[in-house]
Amino acid sequence: MTETSERVAGSNAAADAGLPAAVSAPARIADPGEQISVEELQLAARNHGLPLEALACDITPPGLHYLLTHYDMPILDESTWRLRIDGTVESPLNIDLSELRAMPQRTLTVTFECAGNGRARYEPRAQSQPWLVEAVGTATWTGVPLARLLEKAGVRDGALDVVCTGADHGVERGVEQDYQRALDLADALDEDVLVAYEMNGSPLPLQHGFPARLVVPGWYGMAQVKWLTGIEVLAEQFDGFQHRAYRLRHWAEGADGGAEPDGVALTRIEPRALLIPPGYPDFYSRTRVVAPGEVEVSGRAWSGWAPVTRVQLTTDGGSTWIDAELDPEPGEQAGSERYAWRRWRATWLAGPGEYHLGARAQDASGRVQAVEAPWNRGGFANNSVQRVRVVCQDR
Amino acid sequence: MTETSERVAGSNAAADAGLPAAVSAPARIADPGEQISVEELQLAARNHGLPLEALACDITPPGLHYLLTHYDMPILDESTWRLRIDGTVESPLNIDLSELRAMPQRTLTVTFECAGNGRARYEPRAQSQPWLVEAVGTATWTGVPLARLLEKAGVRDGALDVVCTGADHGVERGVEQDYQRALDLADALDEDVLVAYEMNGSPLPLQHGFPARLVVPGWYGMAQVKWLTGIEVLAEQFDGFQHRAYRLRHWAEGADGGAEPDGVALTRIEPRALLIPPGYPDFYSRTRVVAPGEVEVSGRAWSGWAPVTRVQLTTDGGSTWIDAELDPEPGEQAGSERYAWRRWRATWLAGPGEYHLGARAQDASGRVQAVEAPWNRGGFANNSVQRVRVVCQDR
Repeated sequence: MTETSERVAGSNAAADAGLPAAVSAPARIADPGEQISVEELQLAARNHGLPLEALACDITPPGLHYLLTHYDMPILDESTWRLRIDGTVESPLNIDLSELRAMPQRTLTVTFECAGNGRARYEPRAQSQPWLVEAVGTATWTGVPLARLLEKAGVRDGALDVVCTGADHGVERGVEQDYQRALDLADALDEDVLVAYEMNGSPLPLQHGFPARLVVPGWYGMAQVKWLTGIEVLAEQFDGFQHRAYRLRHWAEGADGGAEPDGVALTRIEPRALLIPPGYPDFYSRTRVVAPGEVEVSGRAWSGWAPVTRVQLTTDGGSTWIDAELDPEPGEQAGSERYAWRRWRATWLAGPGEYHLGARAQDASGRVQAVEAPWNRGGFANNSVQRVRVVCQDR
Repeated sequence: MTETSERVAGSNAAADAGLPAAVSAPARIADPGEQISVEELQLAARNHGLPLEALACDITPPGLHYLLTHYDMPILDESTWRLRIDGTVESPLNIDLSELRAMPQRTLTVTFECAGNGRARYEPRAQSQPWLVEAVGTATWTGVPLARLLEKAGVRDGALDVVCTGADHGVERGVEQDYQRALDLADALDEDVLVAYEMNGSPLPLQHGFPARLVVPGWYGMAQVKWLTGIEVLAEQFDGFQHRAYRLRHWAEGADGGAEPDGVALTRIEPRALLIPPGYPDFYSRTRVVAPGEVEVSGRAWSGWAPVTRVQLTTDGGSTWIDAELDPEPGEQAGSERYAWRRWRATWLAGPGEYHLGARAQDASGRVQAVEAPWNRGGFANNSVQRVRVVCQDR
């Protein structure tokens, strides 16, 4: 579109300009009790979470899957779109969508979660997208294994990292950039890493990376590069901005944009269980109302590390727990669903009173969800147990 | 679905229970400087706005149209769904989706906007969904004119109001309810008021009211009843909760839930123009960066009262204005698009410096968008001019 190309041209022209801190300030932690800023509110209005009642759907309906866009969503023209595969390869490729669609494909059902999910529940709070618990969704993705594209291009000796570049362009903490993330060669050659061109059987929606995006099952959202335009094989380790930003740091030193990476890189999704808030809500408080008696509580649980093996429900904010019943684990024949969340159910005999419901997940790697996840300065991976306030009304 | 029917059963059982203010408090205005509450943040994470770059699309792509759900989205089963038309009619109807689809249909392209759009920009702020400027979207809706259904049922003498009931159930300011809004008989018989079952040529998405919803072109979102289950013709004036809540009040007396309606009922959409933020954004501040030179600024403008006749652009926060060029108005042959937003464009010669861009719309009824809309206690109809901070960088 002219619109888009004009805007891209404009941004390229300014590519070398330094930007004042008033435009793009360093990361900062809100002061204790400091209010949600208008900037955080702007992000919350743009980016949206999964309305928790939609946890009832195995596949998140289009438009309800969580969405986090760092810059603007680029509107790409599929007739002119090309995907470059170059760098440390025998024969660089420059393929169009029909060529991509003609290659061997596979379909996987994958639960995505934003690495910043839960950020606004940390105290103090990193100023960024203020997620509570809802930055999650599950979809089926169809595409070409990245490994097929790398084989076709012929990876040369000495290759270390595979850098994926999106068309989304902006500035972040003073650094102008196209969105970029890398995988090391071993991860990039995993048969389940896809260059996807379909979501739930249809072409990718604009906001999910049309016409093609990366899908790295089990990893947090920052790895799922949207609006993919380039794949470059590097003979050295990639040290891009998003790799320095998406790290678990437990001390305040070292600005995210700094040259010296520190902390632990975020990769796979920590275990989490969420429940469908039972009964009906109050519009403003979202407090739930249920009638006394048996209440079916159900939800979903997932982990990027290993299959979920146990889910427990609490109705008292984490003091006591009862085991939930898990839907059968996908068998070998359902290998395409092993990255999808797992349904769980429990029956709660509710008497008059006030309750705080939550659930916690455990996976086959032994990871257990904490009632309160440890703080980190970026506000990442906060899988602290959900707190759903429920009032049970006597007749 | 069992899930849903259980929840509905549960809520009906509690229908007569009184609810403590701790569950569902009266409306309140935030104190001066009072921070965004966790309740407002929860609403912002559930309900989402149009990412402003999507203003480039004539029809808002699925999933990017604004969304405001008062309670939970009910998951209805189209095989058991029925629509009742009863009350002051000759022969009550109870029709299924295939019967609805067999009736005379029409398709209209309509711009929707939430009556609460702009609420968080008022000072002081009503505590509710904290929209800034983005609660808008445009879609094509296909359905049966409500007039055809009312003719089929045969409206009896003395009919005054037509009450539409949705399946979404909750409590709001202490009042338990299914979502309900009424139109007076004259408005209900307008040929352009539809019971819609398709959005952009596909069945309604869950979040937009599957399987059928009301579409009242030109009116704010509160009139667009989703998950429609009943249409009742009344011989008296309807005085439901949502009619008492959606009113312009300029004084603090009279709780929204009070028995005595006051203020002015919200009906049609006030004129508004929005621009696509030019250049590229900073992730956190959303401040825009452009290169010096000619910058194409474009956007959309709409009014529920009359066609948009003029749009002006400001780059200095409203002190000075230049006229924008409007796309041709839809002619008679394009009557189906007369409720859709109108595209506008202006060229801005940008020099190094900092700017605040905004646009204002005027319509054929003479209504002009104010730079600062007058305050009202519900935080409604705030069409104050957008403020997009842009920094133009010299080389």
